[in-house]
Amino acid sequence: MNYNQKAIALHKKHKGKIEIKPKVALKTMDDLSTAYTPGVGAVCLEIAKNKKKSWELTNRANQVAIVTDGTAVLGLGNLGPEAAMPVMEGKSAILKSFANIDAVPLCINTTDTEEIIKFCKYIEPSFAGINLEDISAPRCFEILGRLEKELSIPVFHDDQDGSAIVILAALINACRATGKVLKELKVVINGAGAAGLATTRLLLAQGVKDIILLDSQGTIFSGRKDLNKYKKIIAQKTNKKKIKGDKVEALAGADVFIGVSRAKQLNKEMIKSMNLEPIIFAMANPKPEIMPAEALRAGAVVVGTGRSDLPNQINNALVFPGIFRGLLDAKVKDVTVKMKLSAAVSLAYTVKKPNRNNILPKITDKKAVKAIAEAVRKNR
Amino acid sequence: MNYNQKAIALHKKHKGKIEIKPKVALKTMDDLSTAYTPGVGAVCLEIAKNKKKSWELTNRANQVAIVTDGTAVLGLGNLGPEAAMPVMEGKSAILKSFANIDAVPLCINTTDTEEIIKFCKYIEPSFAGINLEDISAPRCFEILGRLEKELSIPVFHDDQDGSAIVILAALINACRATGKVLKELKVVINGAGAAGLATTRLLLAQGVKDIILLDSQGTIFSGRKDLNKYKKIIAQKTNKKKIKGDKVEALAGADVFIGVSRAKQLNKEMIKSMNLEPIIFAMANPKPEIMPAEALRAGAVVVGTGRSDLPNQINNALVFPGIFRGLLDAKVKDVTVKMKLSAAVSLAYTVKKPNRNNILPKITDKKAVKAIAEAVRKNR
Repeated sequence: MNYNQKAIALHKKHKGKIEIKPKVALKTMDDLSTAYTPGVGAVCLEIAKNKKKSWELTNRANQVAIVTDGTAVLGLGNLGPEAAMPVMEGKSAILKSFANIDAVPLCINTTDTEEIIKFCKYIEPSFAGINLEDISAPRCFEILGRLEKELSIPVFHDDQDGSAIVILAALINACRATGKVLKELKVVINGAGAAGLATTRLLLAQGVKDIILLDSQGTIFSGRKDLNKYKKIIAQKTNKKKIKGDKVEALAGADVFIGVSRAKQLNKEMIKSMNLEPIIFAMANPKPEIMPAEALRAGAVVVGTGRSDLPNQINNALVFPGIFRGLLDAKVKDVTVKMKLSAAVSLAYTVKKPNRNNILPKITDKKAVKAIAEAVRKNR
Repeated sequence: MNYNQKAIALHKKHKGKIEIKPKVALKTMDDLSTAYTPGVGAVCLEIAKNKKKSWELTNRANQVAIVTDGTAVLGLGNLGPEAAMPVMEGKSAILKSFANIDAVPLCINTTDTEEIIKFCKYIEPSFAGINLEDISAPRCFEILGRLEKELSIPVFHDDQDGSAIVILAALINACRATGKVLKELKVVINGAGAAGLATTRLLLAQGVKDIILLDSQGTIFSGRKDLNKYKKIIAQKTNKKKIKGDKVEALAGADVFIGVSRAKQLNKEMIKSMNLEPIIFAMANPKPEIMPAEALRAGAVVVGTGRSDLPNQINNALVFPGIFRGLLDAKVKDVTVKMKLSAAVSLAYTVKKPNRNNILPKITDKKAVKAIAEAVRKNR
């Protein structure tokens, strides 16, 4: 059986991947009198007197909502809320398994920006943080920006910053493994959605100077007529030579390809047109832009994908558990650029001697969570 | 320590009462490839092709949302969403412990009827049912009515129908224990909110003819000027003698007192003014309208309360786990009057020989869940 068949069999057998369990026994009437009525009334009144007590007397302090509208599920596109659930249950299972966080998947039936913002405001009293997930660009930028301002709990859009952090960490270690110099790299980022724009911003913040970003219409450059406001801003800071065209034009002479789009393929010829020994991060999920073996044959020196069954997995599952562990432990509200850069560097340096086949720790290696959580805490 | 102190200590120690856990192991990269990417993509696509598959391939079929705005928490009133959480976590713990249902507490930050309705519509794709909880009347009637029409999953407002079912079951067995005849009882229901109105409707449906309902302004009678639309309808069917006044006037010569209000006390003199050997259900939580010992001294023959630490607990925790187990097992959408009556009778007859001190099974006795779930299934 391949992973697709195995996955369907597993999900059918267990009927999904998560369950909600009591932390206290309810076996005797005495248990019920303490956990439920009459005793619970006193607990409610304690919180009514001082709302902050909800962080001590309920599970709230360890509880995160994973909110999605199902419009950008993995690299598969707009599948709707029902079909997004397997990914969200997976995120919940990962958050509990690797960071001991209780995460509630909420796949919701609206794609309206204002309604999603309102929804998150409504659930705020029940949670310590919100993980936005698989919401398509550009709505996700508006939603994240507004919620960062309007909520008093932290909001993290994994597809944006989780991707950006893990990609920067992977790039730092690809440089350590190959002797390349990060700030001198010519980077092509294919996809100007949530992950593409956030990654561009974080690489710029880390000092990478030469980035070309592509969307479905080709290279993004200052002055292109059809850019949304987010792309317009990024066009000021990237592609300074205003190269026009598509992947072929952008990749000629580039050092790094980062694929975070779902539509576009990469072929051998394109890799051959790049600088010597290029770095290829083909991160579309579940189907990478090019399979690693083929990329290596075409001359790539380090190849990573988003998948768990291939070497050099570059997946935000390495990041979001540690980010939320840090945010919750330190009761941090804002995820700052400094925090993200520090998280990326810390994640990279959990690997003592990165080599071409081993640039990042495995998701199952709890070092990643510890290092990132610590980076969040110390930069609060 | 009393239950209040014990409850606060328990909630502080465990930081609430529930957690969210994986049903599948995530220990190896192979586990991740199956439960997460790349395998999970195939599961998403299966559901995208046919949304009904979300009932087989995710936890949805066993997953219920407990939605509250915190406006009518126990008998304590409008405490707000944060302070409602201990009760909701308690309900979640009860649903898992007694009916193996996964329930997500969502205490939300709006009291607007239309917004609560929209909220429930938005979360529909993630759940198999919605348990409305502790939402004050009369908004709860509009919300329940609309959601019953507009959602494709079952909606149950526990404070209405859970209360009504457990009270009818208790009354049936109080009659069995004392030889009284249900349909001939003169019943006074103190409180015309969610529980009071739903209980009145269900008792009428079971054939009880003489009911007087009281709200904060006194007895409800046809023609009273200040009645909302729900009370107007019930006024047509109750208090046919149009008795005016308050508890004193209503209780003179009554056989049964049912207290489901938070404001009003019951005293010995009132009980003494009732018919011989009256039945007293003093169900305000956590503080009953009168303590059982005092009611018995005043001449009551059967006394019940909502509390777990007193005999004859009449608490909807006996009902909602079985109702949801039945609804989920049989994929029932509508909770009908026939179903509710059958659930009450089935619950009552789980007690073979009811006596004055033992009219209902304990919440910890799984007979209740089985009997009620079966009543739901067979009346679908």
